[in-house]
Amino acid sequence: MSELIEIPARKGKATHLEQGQTIKIINTHGHQVVDTWVFNASDLKEYSSNEHTRVNLSSIFPKSGEPLYTNKRRPIAILEEDTSPGIHDTMMAACDRYRYEQLGCADYHENCSENLHLALREIDLNISSTPAPLNLWMNIPVNMEGDCGWKPPVSKPGDFVKFRAVMDCIFAMSACPQDLVPINAGKPVEAHFGILP
Amino acid sequence: MSELIEIPARKGKATHLEQGQTIKIINTHGHQVVDTWVFNASDLKEYSSNEHTRVNLSSIFPKSGEPLYTNKRRPIAILEEDTSPGIHDTMMAACDRYRYEQLGCADYHENCSENLHLALREIDLNISSTPAPLNLWMNIPVNMEGDCGWKPPVSKPGDFVKFRAVMDCIFAMSACPQDLVPINAGKPVEAHFGILP
Repeated sequence: MSELIEIPARKGKATHLEQGQTIKIINTHGHQVVDTWVFNASDLKEYSSNEHTRVNLSSIFPKSGEPLYTNKRRPIAILEEDTSPGIHDTMMAACDRYRYEQLGCADYHENCSENLHLALREIDLNISSTPAPLNLWMNIPVNMEGDCGWKPPVSKPGDFVKFRAVMDCIFAMSACPQDLVPINAGKPVEAHFGILP
Repeated sequence: MSELIEIPARKGKATHLEQGQTIKIINTHGHQVVDTWVFNASDLKEYSSNEHTRVNLSSIFPKSGEPLYTNKRRPIAILEEDTSPGIHDTMMAACDRYRYEQLGCADYHENCSENLHLALREIDLNISSTPAPLNLWMNIPVNMEGDCGWKPPVSKPGDFVKFRAVMDCIFAMSACPQDLVPINAGKPVEAHFGILP
């Protein structure tokens, strides 16, 4: 595996992944949500789409062995391994400045939407919108009435997921800076990733 | 109320709605899913967004009295009344040509994504992507493992929803042409809408 690369607390990172390569995303401290997006490297307008993935899987989140699908309904990356209990979220938007304004922040707050765009810019890429992310380890229980809770992750320190790229793609990840609702157990921290050939 | 306008079976319709006006969308035969989108009339890049609505409502679908929120987290239309049991879907993508290809259609099949774009074009509007729709009356039960079912609507003939516009907006609706999974009880039919001052 490549050296581990840090996704700094409250920040984002993006990386190229060639078809067939695997990325290992590590929940270093166990209680960190990592918002994750996957883009077709040759057409950034094609990307992992929760609403298309849910149709193809007939499930609200992917389980080990299942692909993420794009907005053209093509598999883009396969969730090959997941050492955590498999509780992830596909329903909630990436946090953004509007979210923190509504939560009462008068000053600037880091946010996953901006982290996505900054991370892509670091590798000379640019997109004009923020697709809905796969929120790794985000624990949003849904009850029979459709009501959603906002709970800390149930993952352990060192839990990881591995995704194998079905096509050349870009993975973008944000160590979610949310500290006003308990999804990161109140303390946003760093996470890590590495690339396997 | 304005005269009732037909959303023809398997087709789409779009209409302007001024701030304060109410649209009544009618499930004429009771078993028809109507994919619905709401766009800010002065900026089509701002539109009703399921992933933002779910955050603001902490719920996977809106209930009577609750707004739909845009991708800028602003209320755009309020679900004022719902005579049906309130089972709608915010999780599944609009059907499109890729969906029908995967379901085995060798020939052209009408689809909600194309219906959206054609309906907007009829009123001289154009967008470059297909946001995730609010699928009125679509019955997608989710169990505790996150698995989703594809069931016929539980609404009755003549059930309706009313949405009041919070800003000048465009409502686009598609009488979903899906006839290969049972979400329209196997028989896509027409629906109707009218505008109240």
